[in-house]
Amino acid sequence: MSGHLAVVGLGPGDARYLTPEADEALAGAQALYGYGPYLDRVPVRVGQIRSASDNREERSRAAAALRHAAEGTRVAVVSGGDPGVFAMAAAVCEEIESGPEGWRTLDVAIVPGITAMLAVAARIGAPLGHDFCALSLSDNLKPWDLVERRLDAAAGAGFVIALYNPVSRARPWQFGAAIERLRRHLPAATPVVFGYAVGRPHEAVNVATLEHADAAAADMATLVIVGSRETRVVLRPGRSPLVYTPRTAVEVSA
Amino acid sequence: MSGHLAVVGLGPGDARYLTPEADEALAGAQALYGYGPYLDRVPVRVGQIRSASDNREERSRAAAALRHAAEGTRVAVVSGGDPGVFAMAAAVCEEIESGPEGWRTLDVAIVPGITAMLAVAARIGAPLGHDFCALSLSDNLKPWDLVERRLDAAAGAGFVIALYNPVSRARPWQFGAAIERLRRHLPAATPVVFGYAVGRPHEAVNVATLEHADAAAADMATLVIVGSRETRVVLRPGRSPLVYTPRTAVEVSA
Repeated sequence: MSGHLAVVGLGPGDARYLTPEADEALAGAQALYGYGPYLDRVPVRVGQIRSASDNREERSRAAAALRHAAEGTRVAVVSGGDPGVFAMAAAVCEEIESGPEGWRTLDVAIVPGITAMLAVAARIGAPLGHDFCALSLSDNLKPWDLVERRLDAAAGAGFVIALYNPVSRARPWQFGAAIERLRRHLPAATPVVFGYAVGRPHEAVNVATLEHADAAAADMATLVIVGSRETRVVLRPGRSPLVYTPRTAVEVSA
Repeated sequence: MSGHLAVVGLGPGDARYLTPEADEALAGAQALYGYGPYLDRVPVRVGQIRSASDNREERSRAAAALRHAAEGTRVAVVSGGDPGVFAMAAAVCEEIESGPEGWRTLDVAIVPGITAMLAVAARIGAPLGHDFCALSLSDNLKPWDLVERRLDAAAGAGFVIALYNPVSRARPWQFGAAIERLRRHLPAATPVVFGYAVGRPHEAVNVATLEHADAAAADMATLVIVGSRETRVVLRPGRSPLVYTPRTAVEVSA
């Protein structure tokens, strides 16, 4: 088989974040697969086939793309942010593992992109400047008590926490429950950053304290960063505050 | 003050990973500050001042750049990977907080980049496809027992672990100690990915098991990803294996 499959990270939205490697992979593809709104960000090129699918259909999209590549086509699967972070690269690997033997001989390339937590952090300062973790709040694919256990472990050990997929229509209460859980571990004044649609024209970044963080302030397009005990807020006259986590850590209070 | 300070992420090395936003910030700067080897990656532009410094001098480099920007200059501080991940953005925020009041009125922009763990993950599959953390093994800025506590928490709760700064000339034993520590929590067969100089011409990515991971296999240019109990290796005839962490997690075994 001479096909090629690229899993391409578009970054957070704006073309200013699209790497030259990703741009080249998109331009060279004969067929594009992806969640509709992500495909819509890719410039239309004559002769290129586009297959849009719903955001819940990662496995079937990956399988369709692999079948197409196995026919000898150059295929690109597009992903928002970085394809390796709660996105399409793992779905493609799952399909390769469970699919026909021939899929293992395909030329597969993962093209990294700027993932949401890096874009949000950059907008507000450097909240991920020290040890941190990335946790998806979706319990479609894992039990909620595992999410809680990870929140406990991460906050207790002093990691800053980036929360992906805080809420969706089908998961309305999870983010509020996570905030409640984190209040057991962290001081009331701990900074919480809400990055909404960062990299797109209507982006907004807001800072709250853990005490006053409003669960209703997050939606499907929001990435939330919860600071550690070390995370600091620097107020600036006439400018938005900077939120950062110092590179130096002295102790963990459990 | 009309000065401007950009903290710019170059990504992992090759210009194919440099975002258009970062390229623009570099082209528009009157003065560049950075660790010498990172500055060397930036194309020379006529009339641009360059100040190279040693990699241990983050705070003094940040202060020098802020002083220069406060004089009304357009300054860019360059950083490998993403400036917000164990890099210059936090150092600049620290200096703004502790420096002259006037520095708080400066126009400061952080320009994100592809951080090393995303580049390494992309080369090998999707090891960061589920919940993960990023931990620096440098104990220059935190006590070693805090590193161990974080390794325990992260491995125990099922996070995949990206290890930044595994070793340096001044820190020869830390990575070996971290591997030993992780062996208490994780099965012998847990995949460990060594990404060496990814994004540069001499890059190499290797996979070992936790049981056989060789502490001497990491150097200053290595980013290590230690899988969770869920992380899988897919062998491929004639190709390097894929390492990925499924999006679905069922349980945590402590």
